[in-house]
Amino acid sequence: MIRRVLDNLRLLTCQPGAAGYQLRDGPLVLADGRIEAMGSIPAGFEDAEITDLGGRVVTPALIDCHTHLVFAGDRAREFEMRLQGASYQEIARAGGGILSTVTATRAASEDELVDAALPRLDALVAEGVATVEIKSGYGLTIDDELKMLRAARRLARLRPVRIVTSWLAAHAVPPEYAGRSDDYLDQIAIPGLTAAHAEGLVDAVDGFCEEIAFSAAQMARLFDAAAALGLPVKLHAEQLSHQGGSRLVAQRGGLSADHLEYADSGDAAAMAQAGTVATLLPGAFYTLRETRLPPIAAFRQAGTVMALASDCNPGTSPLTSILLTMNMGATLFRLTPEECLRGVTANAARALGLTDCGVIAVGNRADLAVWDIDHPAELSYRIGFNPLHARYFEGERC
Amino acid sequence: MIRRVLDNLRLLTCQPGAAGYQLRDGPLVLADGRIEAMGSIPAGFEDAEITDLGGRVVTPALIDCHTHLVFAGDRAREFEMRLQGASYQEIARAGGGILSTVTATRAASEDELVDAALPRLDALVAEGVATVEIKSGYGLTIDDELKMLRAARRLARLRPVRIVTSWLAAHAVPPEYAGRSDDYLDQIAIPGLTAAHAEGLVDAVDGFCEEIAFSAAQMARLFDAAAALGLPVKLHAEQLSHQGGSRLVAQRGGLSADHLEYADSGDAAAMAQAGTVATLLPGAFYTLRETRLPPIAAFRQAGTVMALASDCNPGTSPLTSILLTMNMGATLFRLTPEECLRGVTANAARALGLTDCGVIAVGNRADLAVWDIDHPAELSYRIGFNPLHARYFEGERC
Ligand SMILES: [Zn+2]
Ligand SMILES: [Zn+2]
Repeated sequence: MIRRVLDNLRLLTCQPGAAGYQLRDGPLVLADGRIEAMGSIPAGFEDAEITDLGGRVVTPALIDCHTHLVFAGDRAREFEMRLQGASYQEIARAGGGILSTVTATRAASEDELVDAALPRLDALVAEGVATVEIKSGYGLTIDDELKMLRAARRLARLRPVRIVTSWLAAHAVPPEYAGRSDDYLDQIAIPGLTAAHAEGLVDAVDGFCEEIAFSAAQMARLFDAAAALGLPVKLHAEQLSHQGGSRLVAQRGGLSADHLEYADSGDAAAMAQAGTVATLLPGAFYTLRETRLPPIAAFRQAGTVMALASDCNPGTSPLTSILLTMNMGATLFRLTPEECLRGVTANAARALGLTDCGVIAVGNRADLAVWDIDHPAELSYRIGFNPLHARYFEGERC
Repeated sequence: MIRRVLDNLRLLTCQPGAAGYQLRDGPLVLADGRIEAMGSIPAGFEDAEITDLGGRVVTPALIDCHTHLVFAGDRAREFEMRLQGASYQEIARAGGGILSTVTATRAASEDELVDAALPRLDALVAEGVATVEIKSGYGLTIDDELKMLRAARRLARLRPVRIVTSWLAAHAVPPEYAGRSDDYLDQIAIPGLTAAHAEGLVDAVDGFCEEIAFSAAQMARLFDAAAALGLPVKLHAEQLSHQGGSRLVAQRGGLSADHLEYADSGDAAAMAQAGTVATLLPGAFYTLRETRLPPIAAFRQAGTVMALASDCNPGTSPLTSILLTMNMGATLFRLTPEECLRGVTANAARALGLTDCGVIAVGNRADLAVWDIDHPAELSYRIGFNPLHARYFEGERC
């Protein structure tokens, strides 16, 4: 049994409920990858190795609860064309848009997807992230969606990090199903889910509920299939227009509704009541230069739990920094630094249905981030600076 | 004489004039910290050490031409108070605002200023930066302004980086001179400049020309003092209102006018004619959630040279990433990735009056950045990702 005592630290547990940072002193006792004790050293641990953390602030390791981290190609040329004044049509003719990522991802092997994703994963891990959600959604055939999730699972064997997967075949309608989105659901998204689940590749089911993608009624059909398999659901909802996706997720007791710029106070109340997390994605808001903010005041008033995530993807949020995500949450969405921190720890864990990480508590996984900061607000305040001192994943410093 | 040949690379020289990236092949021959030859290996270099760069893209090392990198304290608590809904008055009463940085900087020793600045400098250097401009401006007494610039000069001895200093005593009127800004200029900013110059601490003279700081007429008096010492001038101009600062800099043949959200097409033309660079600071625009954009179209039409910089400072731009500055230049200001790259290389050098860096050319300093990218646009496209493979400062890999 690996035993370790971390001492001379200021613990920021991120326990839900209590308002304020509630900094408390150590020591923190780790055993077998879990938190064994807090505040005192129990009998039997007198001989454990003691690490002096020099008075540093320790938080739960961070969690990025919404990413599209596995994909091939990039969209830098498309980014450039747009800034050079190219129209949407010109970019589409030049092979740009989500289809360029679908084409590149279909052409890539599982190994190539893993190689392409690793630098992005490493960037997150370098900022103290220990859990990353990764979605499929650029294959849009059963085989290519499975390939993406196999690559995602492999990442967890290559790096000391926890990967949580989402089946997102209902991300876009591929060209071969143009005008036949119901056929795509019946022939690809739903049967593929069954196959992926049978292979142990799926932790949750996601979809893109938007005029340009799938309707709430279609997502309800997908969610029926998820329910039949016992899988939790979530949705990209109310990003560009109000489609009712967030209400649907709440009705199904889903994990989260994500984006939510067009959500309203009724949605906020429904989500709060269902315990569905509002996952906010300021990187996409920033990249798309959106002006309509998610209804933060309504979420606060209803008590909707808010998470924050990078939405790392090649088109609308090529963002691989969870700390910058926090700064954007504060700067662009006017979340408080405390809300930003809870959004990438306790609330992000909840958005993933994880009950044993994201909070420093006895029995939880010993996923920790140790920071060279004086005050917790510094994590959101700085822009493009990484004050991580050390990261612990399941009790190991790495 | 240290000789080195870099081969198997794609050179992005950032030569002014030629449009487009103009990628060319190597080799690149370095000798004694300078670029000795490009495209072929001259006689006498047959025995030089050859480094294979694996086909990577090589640009000039990046330049951050506007920072307030040396300061004490931080403003994270103020950032948090504002997001918790505190008013400007409440923050001021709690000791916030620029005065909190002045108080902390006055209280800090030169050693403490150096220690506080090093992590910020290291963050820039890690992204391929080799030249950093650093301003005084948080001391606001002669001794404290000198202390800041001595700290800035020391940074260049502690890290392989070039530091260019600016005298910015005319940054704010300190409380002891409240309502007596002319006295402050006559008793501190101007005599202090002479003292700092005598000590070799000043490369250029800067000021903050704004209603809340100093008028264009006052800045003209400061510039007279600079001219008497043979020092070039620059100005924080037209950030929050139109004060005529950019015209003044152009009239004096100054290096740059910086910020410029409120500049107009006449200012753009005057700057273009004078060769004064427009230094754009998207980090401050982002942090302050400005909506008025600098007149980019007017700059393009007039042929005004545009640079981009972090404006790293504890209040309005706690930003220590030059790559994120480039992304913000593209995303927020709609600069093209090529404009962003020139803005932190050739044009940033010009904003500092440097003629032998920022461009890869024979005779120039061998300051280089080697990137793990396929296309130059990736440098602006990604958010919070650092693809630097290696950095050369004056011919040495470090
Ligand atoms: Zn997404
Ligand atoms: Zn400035």
